[in-house]
Amino acid sequence: MVKIAVLGYGTVGSGVVEVIERNRMLIEKRVGKRLEVKYVLDIRDFPGDPYEDRIVHDAERILKDPEVEIICETMGGIEPAYTYSKRALEAGKSVCTSNKELVAAHGAELIALSEKHGCNYLFEASVGGGIPIIRPLNCALTAERVVEITGILNGTTNYILTRMEKDGADFGTVLKEAQQKGYAERNPEADVEGYDACRKIAILTSLIAGRTVDFGEIHTEGITGITPEDFQYARAMGRTIKLLAVSREEEDGYLASVTPCMLKKEVPLALVNGVFNAVSVRGNTLGESMFYGKGAGKLPTASAVVSDVVDCARHLGEHMVCIWEDEPVRLKPFEEGVSRFFVRMKEESEAEADAVFGPVAKIRLQELSGEYGFLTEPMTEREFAGKHRKVSGMISRIRVRD
Amino acid sequence: MVKIAVLGYGTVGSGVVEVIERNRMLIEKRVGKRLEVKYVLDIRDFPGDPYEDRIVHDAERILKDPEVEIICETMGGIEPAYTYSKRALEAGKSVCTSNKELVAAHGAELIALSEKHGCNYLFEASVGGGIPIIRPLNCALTAERVVEITGILNGTTNYILTRMEKDGADFGTVLKEAQQKGYAERNPEADVEGYDACRKIAILTSLIAGRTVDFGEIHTEGITGITPEDFQYARAMGRTIKLLAVSREEEDGYLASVTPCMLKKEVPLALVNGVFNAVSVRGNTLGESMFYGKGAGKLPTASAVVSDVVDCARHLGEHMVCIWEDEPVRLKPFEEGVSRFFVRMKEESEAEADAVFGPVAKIRLQELSGEYGFLTEPMTEREFAGKHRKVSGMISRIRVRD
Repeated sequence: MVKIAVLGYGTVGSGVVEVIERNRMLIEKRVGKRLEVKYVLDIRDFPGDPYEDRIVHDAERILKDPEVEIICETMGGIEPAYTYSKRALEAGKSVCTSNKELVAAHGAELIALSEKHGCNYLFEASVGGGIPIIRPLNCALTAERVVEITGILNGTTNYILTRMEKDGADFGTVLKEAQQKGYAERNPEADVEGYDACRKIAILTSLIAGRTVDFGEIHTEGITGITPEDFQYARAMGRTIKLLAVSREEEDGYLASVTPCMLKKEVPLALVNGVFNAVSVRGNTLGESMFYGKGAGKLPTASAVVSDVVDCARHLGEHMVCIWEDEPVRLKPFEEGVSRFFVRMKEESEAEADAVFGPVAKIRLQELSGEYGFLTEPMTEREFAGKHRKVSGMISRIRVRD
Repeated sequence: MVKIAVLGYGTVGSGVVEVIERNRMLIEKRVGKRLEVKYVLDIRDFPGDPYEDRIVHDAERILKDPEVEIICETMGGIEPAYTYSKRALEAGKSVCTSNKELVAAHGAELIALSEKHGCNYLFEASVGGGIPIIRPLNCALTAERVVEITGILNGTTNYILTRMEKDGADFGTVLKEAQQKGYAERNPEADVEGYDACRKIAILTSLIAGRTVDFGEIHTEGITGITPEDFQYARAMGRTIKLLAVSREEEDGYLASVTPCMLKKEVPLALVNGVFNAVSVRGNTLGESMFYGKGAGKLPTASAVVSDVVDCARHLGEHMVCIWEDEPVRLKPFEEGVSRFFVRMKEESEAEADAVFGPVAKIRLQELSGEYGFLTEPMTEREFAGKHRKVSGMISRIRVRD
């Protein structure tokens, strides 16, 4: 019998209990032992809940109970999750978490602590919800040098962009609708500004590099500036717009960013719609592989946490290799990144723009008078910024990925 | 230091050596030990090859060498691979294989043998080449009841169908071209008749059921009967045609098949083109997730074999759980499977067909006179066969998947 505690009985925490109950027979067969959720920590009471009698308000009861071998940390946020996780690991209890903020901020330290104490700190649910991506990187693509990861890592923004594309609606309208449907938070900043995707690409980059990425150093742009007009141009070019989190190994460091990008409609990532997420991984011998699924949601996220519980229960007393050291990864300055740009320009600045950007094919849409669009040649961010300063009539620009 | 032997220095076997050499530093870091390929078994000599001095012609040297702890079986076919694998496992040597014929035929037995002798029999490369799918099913989706797997599991047929769709060419012409490019074998039967995909879906079904599927019982149709006209109708309906391997858990058993299917263009599997493969997995709490990548090829397949080597080297002397027992899986009779059908019918049989199939929307293409097409309502294979017998002018039929 393996005894478990769940910290936080919110969406994911209650999902963990639900997944264990629903698939108990299969899960216990795979573990080879019975599982019991002994405690659920929450500040609230849950009268009438089948787990009512397991609810505790004091974390000490869990952390000091030697019977508890695995802890599901589904609280979110840095504190008190960080303190509880450290204390659990120090007591030799494995921790399975869906907490991307904590993993992005203290992953290396918590993994090292788990190694020291012969247990595990697992975080499959922290990136891509129900998409198995952490375990494939750690356990499956072990013969590969992963040279690039490109992901659609945030379901809220992908839902919003998908609706904008399909309905021609503007960002604010679709955001409001997404909030009503529960696809976006009341305070949507972490999603729509790209901060959530930034933490996730930081975690993935740390795993492929085996060292720590400071997520604060990753250039991050959200989708609040994307307009229906941008989608009109994209459509005219056979493209769509996605918020892409990218990390690429180059000779002198990793180039990581979160930015909206125009993609050709026929590339696999362009077809990831609505709340689905996907991670495309390029290895030096494998070529491209892609992992696709629900990026969020109660049960998909909980299923990922429980898959970590199964792994911990199969390996009690044994640390599983996860190479993510505290040493920092060198990130290349974002200004050195190269891409093409889609530019929307006012008609009145056409001569100016021609002089700066040279000969380009221009796209004029009947619906949009007084402006035109074009694609630049590939250039660094720095070069583009230099050109941008020289023309006054640039309405907007979006990076282009071929 | 972990010593390895490679059985068979053909495409995959030489790829295994290449992947180990190319990514040696990373791989050894992940294993935590050095790796050495001590022997390569082949009937041929390879004068001038950097591994010339490791080539042996006698399997006994490998099987009797206690230093060899891991064997990569990249020979293909049942014998002598089966005998060598058994002897290796009995000697406590782990075996990593790309041999789908052997895994489909004797998987449960070889896994049980590895468990008995405290080693491992791993076969990531046997399905989906470079797509990590075996390990995700065994180690990542462990909290799930997997209720359905749908795969494009054969690169040759997917390449042929993709070319037929894009170029309007017929099967024979495209097959010849694929053979010239090395995408199809001189004897293409195993691919184009669906036998290869059949073995792969048998392996995947065995893994999700935890018991053995007899691949001989899986209804299998290939793509040799698919015509350019079928693609013309598909296009008119916003669909394409793919060879799908499907396995679905129903109340009274699994329904497994390999058949060409018409898919809507916007579903993720419809976009898997050329030599790419994909496996879509539906879990009871996770919903749909999909794994996409190169289904074959020297280095992708070898990378999968080497990822198994890494796992074995990390777990020397320890058997990793893989639930696949010898007990047979009950497969439902194919005749009980339900789907819609696309039917091509001669004009002259229209009255007859109307009487049998009832009112249907008819598709008439200007280019194809004297015939029309329609989609049936959902019905069992048995019902469809009964109706088929009652009309004389049916040109062809393809199952439809929504």
